[in-house]
Amino acid sequence: MKKLSLIILLCLSVLHLSAEDGYELWLRYRPVNDPALLKEYKKITSAVRILGNTPTDTAIRNEMLAALPTMLQTNIPVNTPAAPSLLIGTLDQINRQIDLPVIHNTNDEGFIISNATIKGRKVTIITGKTPIGVLYGTFQFIRMLQTNQSVTDLPVVSSPKVQLRLLNHWDNLTRYVERGYAGISIWNWHLLPAFLDPRYTDYARLNASVGINGVVLNNVNANADILTAPYLEKVAALAKVFRPYGIKVYLSARFSAPIEIGHLSTADPLNDSVKLWWKNKANEIYSQIPDFGGFLVKANSEGQPGPQAYGRNHADGANLLADAVAPHNGIVIWRAFVYDPEANDRFKQAYDEFKPLDGRFHSNVLVQVKNGPIDFQPREPFSPLFGAMPNTPLMLEVQLTQEYLGQASHLVYEAPLFKEVLDADTYAKGKNSQISKIIDGSLYDHKISGIAAVSNIGNEQNWTMHPFAAANWYAIGRLSWDHSLSSESIASSWIKQTFGNDKDIQTPILNMMMSSREAVVNYMTPLGLHHLMGNGHHYGPAPWSNNLPREDWNPVYYHRADKFGLGFNRTSTGTNALVQYQPAVQQQWADSNTCSDQYLLWFHHVSWSHRLSSGLNLWETLCKKYTDGVSAVKDMQQTWQSLKEKIDGERFERVAMLLAIQHTEAQWWRNACLLYFQTFSGQPFPSNFEKPDHTLEYYQQLKFRYAPGN
Amino acid sequence: MKKLSLIILLCLSVLHLSAEDGYELWLRYRPVNDPALLKEYKKITSAVRILGNTPTDTAIRNEMLAALPTMLQTNIPVNTPAAPSLLIGTLDQINRQIDLPVIHNTNDEGFIISNATIKGRKVTIITGKTPIGVLYGTFQFIRMLQTNQSVTDLPVVSSPKVQLRLLNHWDNLTRYVERGYAGISIWNWHLLPAFLDPRYTDYARLNASVGINGVVLNNVNANADILTAPYLEKVAALAKVFRPYGIKVYLSARFSAPIEIGHLSTADPLNDSVKLWWKNKANEIYSQIPDFGGFLVKANSEGQPGPQAYGRNHADGANLLADAVAPHNGIVIWRAFVYDPEANDRFKQAYDEFKPLDGRFHSNVLVQVKNGPIDFQPREPFSPLFGAMPNTPLMLEVQLTQEYLGQASHLVYEAPLFKEVLDADTYAKGKNSQISKIIDGSLYDHKISGIAAVSNIGNEQNWTMHPFAAANWYAIGRLSWDHSLSSESIASSWIKQTFGNDKDIQTPILNMMMSSREAVVNYMTPLGLHHLMGNGHHYGPAPWSNNLPREDWNPVYYHRADKFGLGFNRTSTGTNALVQYQPAVQQQWADSNTCSDQYLLWFHHVSWSHRLSSGLNLWETLCKKYTDGVSAVKDMQQTWQSLKEKIDGERFERVAMLLAIQHTEAQWWRNACLLYFQTFSGQPFPSNFEKPDHTLEYYQQLKFRYAPGN
Repeated sequence: MKKLSLIILLCLSVLHLSAEDGYELWLRYRPVNDPALLKEYKKITSAVRILGNTPTDTAIRNEMLAALPTMLQTNIPVNTPAAPSLLIGTLDQINRQIDLPVIHNTNDEGFIISNATIKGRKVTIITGKTPIGVLYGTFQFIRMLQTNQSVTDLPVVSSPKVQLRLLNHWDNLTRYVERGYAGISIWNWHLLPAFLDPRYTDYARLNASVGINGVVLNNVNANADILTAPYLEKVAALAKVFRPYGIKVYLSARFSAPIEIGHLSTADPLNDSVKLWWKNKANEIYSQIPDFGGFLVKANSEGQPGPQAYGRNHADGANLLADAVAPHNGIVIWRAFVYDPEANDRFKQAYDEFKPLDGRFHSNVLVQVKNGPIDFQPREPFSPLFGAMPNTPLMLEVQLTQEYLGQASHLVYEAPLFKEVLDADTYAKGKNSQISKIIDGSLYDHKISGIAAVSNIGNEQNWTMHPFAAANWYAIGRLSWDHSLSSESIASSWIKQTFGNDKDIQTPILNMMMSSREAVVNYMTPLGLHHLMGNGHHYGPAPWSNNLPREDWNPVYYHRADKFGLGFNRTSTGTNALVQYQPAVQQQWADSNTCSDQYLLWFHHVSWSHRLSSGLNLWETLCKKYTDGVSAVKDMQQTWQSLKEKIDGERFERVAMLLAIQHTEAQWWRNACLLYFQTFSGQPFPSNFEKPDHTLEYYQQLKFRYAPGN
Repeated sequence: MKKLSLIILLCLSVLHLSAEDGYELWLRYRPVNDPALLKEYKKITSAVRILGNTPTDTAIRNEMLAALPTMLQTNIPVNTPAAPSLLIGTLDQINRQIDLPVIHNTNDEGFIISNATIKGRKVTIITGKTPIGVLYGTFQFIRMLQTNQSVTDLPVVSSPKVQLRLLNHWDNLTRYVERGYAGISIWNWHLLPAFLDPRYTDYARLNASVGINGVVLNNVNANADILTAPYLEKVAALAKVFRPYGIKVYLSARFSAPIEIGHLSTADPLNDSVKLWWKNKANEIYSQIPDFGGFLVKANSEGQPGPQAYGRNHADGANLLADAVAPHNGIVIWRAFVYDPEANDRFKQAYDEFKPLDGRFHSNVLVQVKNGPIDFQPREPFSPLFGAMPNTPLMLEVQLTQEYLGQASHLVYEAPLFKEVLDADTYAKGKNSQISKIIDGSLYDHKISGIAAVSNIGNEQNWTMHPFAAANWYAIGRLSWDHSLSSESIASSWIKQTFGNDKDIQTPILNMMMSSREAVVNYMTPLGLHHLMGNGHHYGPAPWSNNLPREDWNPVYYHRADKFGLGFNRTSTGTNALVQYQPAVQQQWADSNTCSDQYLLWFHHVSWSHRLSSGLNLWETLCKKYTDGVSAVKDMQQTWQSLKEKIDGERFERVAMLLAIQHTEAQWWRNACLLYFQTFSGQPFPSNFEKPDHTLEYYQQLKFRYAPGN
């Protein structure tokens, strides 16, 4: 026993040294402590047989060998000749072994975890129509063990509701990540294709484990060089690593590439040599990457080239690329994030430009629409394009990287934001026309569907810099698979997979996560305020900012504070952006007396003395909301401190330091914004209000020349 | 026993998962396998007592607790009340416990590991005059265990020969690292001072363990903002982390800072308000960082501002800053890396500008001189400034980051390069006036001395990207402490600390390392060739390059190939740079018939038909050398493959992939350079010569727009 304890000591010291640097994220395999469950799991896995021998089956085997010996503290015989207790393979492979009692219905990516009997012996099976489905089932099985769920309550049958479940990397060829706060790009382009970082495989494992099946490797502000031969060779090397995990690679295509790397004189989508160039380029790509996903395009937006330079429209541009990839079953994802400096309300631009094009896009085109009409703010009403283009598959775009949510150092669990959008009812086909039904294709019966999330991943060892930022990567994967999951259930699984099953930590951490989104809304942009952040880097508050070349880049454009009041009148007496919604939705927001506080200043210019439902006037409510936001962060800090003995030192300290920064910056937002708005309201701070530690002038002169991600 | 094996399995799987990502570098603590040594080590450490209670003593305790339980697989009682077997403290503290038999002489940073007796009981002691000395002794003690040396052969007494043992980080405030190939800067300026990455502490541990005692945090191409209050607060936070480990922080100072952040109209070193500004700035810095090391300055070089703009010289500039920090015992390190486009030979510039200033620098100034007269080439003759400025303390600058040595992917062990410089005899005071004696201050009895190494560290998890690049960081620390150590002995310790004591791996890895420097010389720039790399990024070969604005930035300026021959005539019939050396040194290199092949083309323009000592002519020898270089890499690959079963998978695969890139690029260098030089020599390739896989035109059109570090 002495020797035993020494070895435990060794284990612990090894763990202490490097096992909790956070790299494993939610694929963290630690011993199961519950004796009953341990017994059950050991029984089920006493003899594992994997029937297939594709690269995906090798991935399944590797994952089982990484997970089971560590979690069950026993050596698992995989592919034992003995009678299997756990049988893993496609339905065809399984059926050759046994007759399944019932065939549960799944789609090609779905999986079934079920029981069956071979010669009277009970076996657990993990199966699906394809090896990828079986892989997803394997990750589900492992997740059940990680979260200490019994595997006796079977079958578990699941299919993804959305087809394209993508990450968008805003990563440049220099490895600089636009709006990246977790180091530089994990794609080491310079050393590819010969150097394959083991991180690439772990990236694929993490994505596959939550159902993500595609990745756009490069920034939507695209560089045409990614489409040149040397880079396609590098892209192909990544595609080869990802393929066994069911992950396709996509590329952001620069619309003017035919000029920049094709040496043509035009990129006109109706020009024959341009069409030929894209067709040949597509053939070149597919010759190296037969399962290449397709192109993502940002065109005629924020200085990016596009079809409008040639008097063509977005459909002309999208169809050009769509026709080039169509013979290879490729798709084109065309972004609807466009706005024109001359517009009277940036809110309305995407709708005005795209709605008229509904039905003009070829069948392998999706239009990718940001969740809100402006730009990934802490809270936005849903984009009016959802429900406005019934004849076009719309893809939802959300942002994981926290450009407007505190960047590197704020704990913000984004699932409630995602759910708010997915559950929003557009009334496009009457009540219960939720956005989830639009983007999963069910409302208008579209053949392709998708969700895209802007990555928050970098080369920091723990991938996302803030340990809790990984929960957002995890959540969008789980929600893309099944948008009916609740934010709570997703968080709960993530907590157990990331920090373990210790009962004492579950509720406190869940409470921190579930309160965090409303907190950031309150200390940054309560009551429907939006776009109050610093210029360029978007770091910290700058509601006073009024010096950018474009009016609609300036915070003052959005809050419209004056002596009378605050907020952007988008009703019929204002820009009338509201009319872009269905009447039932307009009705919710049209009247400042009945409009929910959440969107009040988004749609109305409200008098400082206006009484809100709270009974307080606008100024008083504003003060209260900002203060509530700061208090919520203080509460998160206290909750975290109460877990000190229950979380490993390295991750505990990291989160504690980041929460301290978040609290300081929440106070900074509150003080800077309220001192500024007070110059218009002219009203005093409430008596209980904590006095700002600096003057407005102090906050206004702060400069952050080297803030990341700019 | 079953349970035992399961736990071992657990340990191994944990190790497998994350313990060999390379993060630990040479502070890698693994069980000692030799039973006799294990017994000895356990006996010596059966009761450890640390006498001090300073932060440095806490660092000593933490290191012992990280190392001993893991290495000895036993719980080590530290500060047991029992009679100690290992007593750790300063000489004063030890003397209060026991009368030491003999007091060995050390300097303030030196240490003694020795035996003594208390009441007839034998104890091992680790001591020194200061806590830092004791810390160095502790790391030496741990290194003896890591390398399986007996600790019975005592005393071990050691003092550093060089005072300032510095790393220079060429890190920008954006985290971009100039000439960095291991990710971005480990300094997360944006999140400092509130977020203290645990990496900062591990960086300090790694440095202290090899004797490095200072770090210049920012790029010599300096940004004045580092001297503003918000950044000094961040610098102070890092200084606080480093202080217990005996590491001082230094900053690169931009000479024009008084204009840029001081809002003065001039930076003239003789101007009183400029003097006052620097004095106040120094006071501000020392008020926050009482042990601030001082300033490093690159002035009037490659566009950096400097005193010459005001008709002053380098001594005027250096003394300005030296006087500002002198009251705080700070020092100024002034770089001699300067060259003037009008010069007839860049080689001669540093000497011409600095030798006349000898004796004009104030007593707290060191002049930092690169090892060679050009710029960190694979091989250069030593800089003629060494020995030419007897009245000025000269600091040696070497480059760890492999700007000219294959960058991220080439295995090049640099200790032989460092030793070649340190052992070079300048004859400044007759024979045996080695550079080592100049830079350690002994030849001219200087009070301050130093070695600076340009860092190769980034935020890659394993710090240096190439696992073997860490050996160069390690080696410069060990050599700065004791320049009499051999490259072999340093490599041997590093191998054991990094890969373990398995006898079968020692010699093969040592051979790889010891052959690697000559290999890179041969496949890049044999026979005294230099500066043949690509423009700007310095990646890959471009001997044909002739289009940069400055003549002395172009490879053709350096190799001077023509129909007659190859090489740069720096003798009396040429630029006569040779005259900058002592006559005895000139004699070694003046005659192309007796000049060593190593420096032949550095000093002579040699006919293609000239016969070398080998009996082959210049062209034939050039072909042979390039081919030898490629073969040496092939040998390294084969050696490494032979170790497949003996090295953990992750590090083995990483090195294997990088060696494959190195071999490809060595062939690229050979083919591109020889095809180009053949256009002048007009001679055929030797019959056994492996035919280039591409044409010269192919190599000439290669572009690398996004190569790192540029």
